[in-house]
Amino acid sequence: MQVEIKPNEKVDDLQRNGYRIIQDKDRFCFGMDAVLLSGFVKARPGDRVLDLGTGTGILPILLCGKTKAEHYTAIEIQPESVEMARRSVLLNDLQDRIDIVQGDICSIAETMRDKRASFDIVVSNPPYMADNHGIQNEADAKTIARHEILCTLEDVVTAASKMIKPSGHFYMVHRPFRLADIITSLKAHHFEPKRMRMVHASVAKEPSMVLIEAIHSAKPGMIVEKPWIIYEEDGSYTRELKEDYGF
Amino acid sequence: MQVEIKPNEKVDDLQRNGYRIIQDKDRFCFGMDAVLLSGFVKARPGDRVLDLGTGTGILPILLCGKTKAEHYTAIEIQPESVEMARRSVLLNDLQDRIDIVQGDICSIAETMRDKRASFDIVVSNPPYMADNHGIQNEADAKTIARHEILCTLEDVVTAASKMIKPSGHFYMVHRPFRLADIITSLKAHHFEPKRMRMVHASVAKEPSMVLIEAIHSAKPGMIVEKPWIIYEEDGSYTRELKEDYGF
Repeated sequence: MQVEIKPNEKVDDLQRNGYRIIQDKDRFCFGMDAVLLSGFVKARPGDRVLDLGTGTGILPILLCGKTKAEHYTAIEIQPESVEMARRSVLLNDLQDRIDIVQGDICSIAETMRDKRASFDIVVSNPPYMADNHGIQNEADAKTIARHEILCTLEDVVTAASKMIKPSGHFYMVHRPFRLADIITSLKAHHFEPKRMRMVHASVAKEPSMVLIEAIHSAKPGMIVEKPWIIYEEDGSYTRELKEDYGF
Repeated sequence: MQVEIKPNEKVDDLQRNGYRIIQDKDRFCFGMDAVLLSGFVKARPGDRVLDLGTGTGILPILLCGKTKAEHYTAIEIQPESVEMARRSVLLNDLQDRIDIVQGDICSIAETMRDKRASFDIVVSNPPYMADNHGIQNEADAKTIARHEILCTLEDVVTAASKMIKPSGHFYMVHRPFRLADIITSLKAHHFEPKRMRMVHASVAKEPSMVLIEAIHSAKPGMIVEKPWIIYEEDGSYTRELKEDYGF
């Protein structure tokens, strides 16, 4: 299929099933966060998946390459990102498995009323920075992707709780400094954190990311997994990262 | 000072200031948990410290050896443990710095009414097992120390919130599988988790303990520290454990 690539855009090989993604060099580009989250998600054949704040569509495309889930609905508020994500879906011939929807997470239960409580899995790589953290420049595409300007952590968890099936699984990547807020918000919306993994550049460093899996209406009690170490001492990727996640 | 040691008791050297502790071979003996918690606590000269559920008195004795805090009040419900802890205090000539109080954490705000909101620091190494976890034999001393029979996590956090000064620091060691409950309970009692460290036998293993510092009435946002690794590959203690904590 012939898909337009605009002058300021680049096409990156995702090294998974030959899938590629279109990104705008001047906008938010996906990072290790999305790749690790796609490795952390456990989806079963037939699962229907919702991605909250999909950006370029990176998560559903990576998950198509890694899991047997049946269908992905991915919502994104920024029209330019939606248009670009749709072209990436076409570029990979995934239009039967991925729907990119333009919309606001905060009103998803109204705009997608017929899909309430229907998703087996919800995933999200949301903006990390609370309004009182970090530097906020003008509300450009990158800032919106990184800061809680158009949606907060609470909005994301609220949306997940409304759209997920009973006993559905919600996966999120976030920053460790927000961990207490994340857990409190999940618990308040009847999600039980069940599995957590900290991601460290090296074992001698503080974690830079936290991956968390919560199950709706589950019993308390969680597993904290061994640390996920990204780099060996010589700067190469660790064996685990290479073997398990196809780097 | 001459202190009685009973036939079923042993006296262990704590390798810190020459301090020793009396333990009953048939009752709960302190573990790595208390030692690591004493290394995690940051106390300043003049601080007044409360230990909730002190058992043999291990935490105040270790903290006397490590910090310049002025005074420790340590509460314990089991009379036999209280009597033994008091003899350990005398054995180390610490009776001016440590008070061992027999009492119930659940009613501490009534029995120690004059000390409400007066402690700079509260510490606790509480029972880890919720009633529905692990095996409960008869409610002997060991079972009471390990299981939430006489006090729950919620009771411990409630007591801490009543006895601590505004902006006081609460330190706890617990099991990672309870992390979501710990954070939710802290937040519900106006504690903000501010610093957390996972303890791993080795980097390739899941954490076996979590150390957490919460500050009362603080702003959100926490630091997750680098993992605390106990053993080298050859089974010896890691350099960090030896150097920083005097093993």
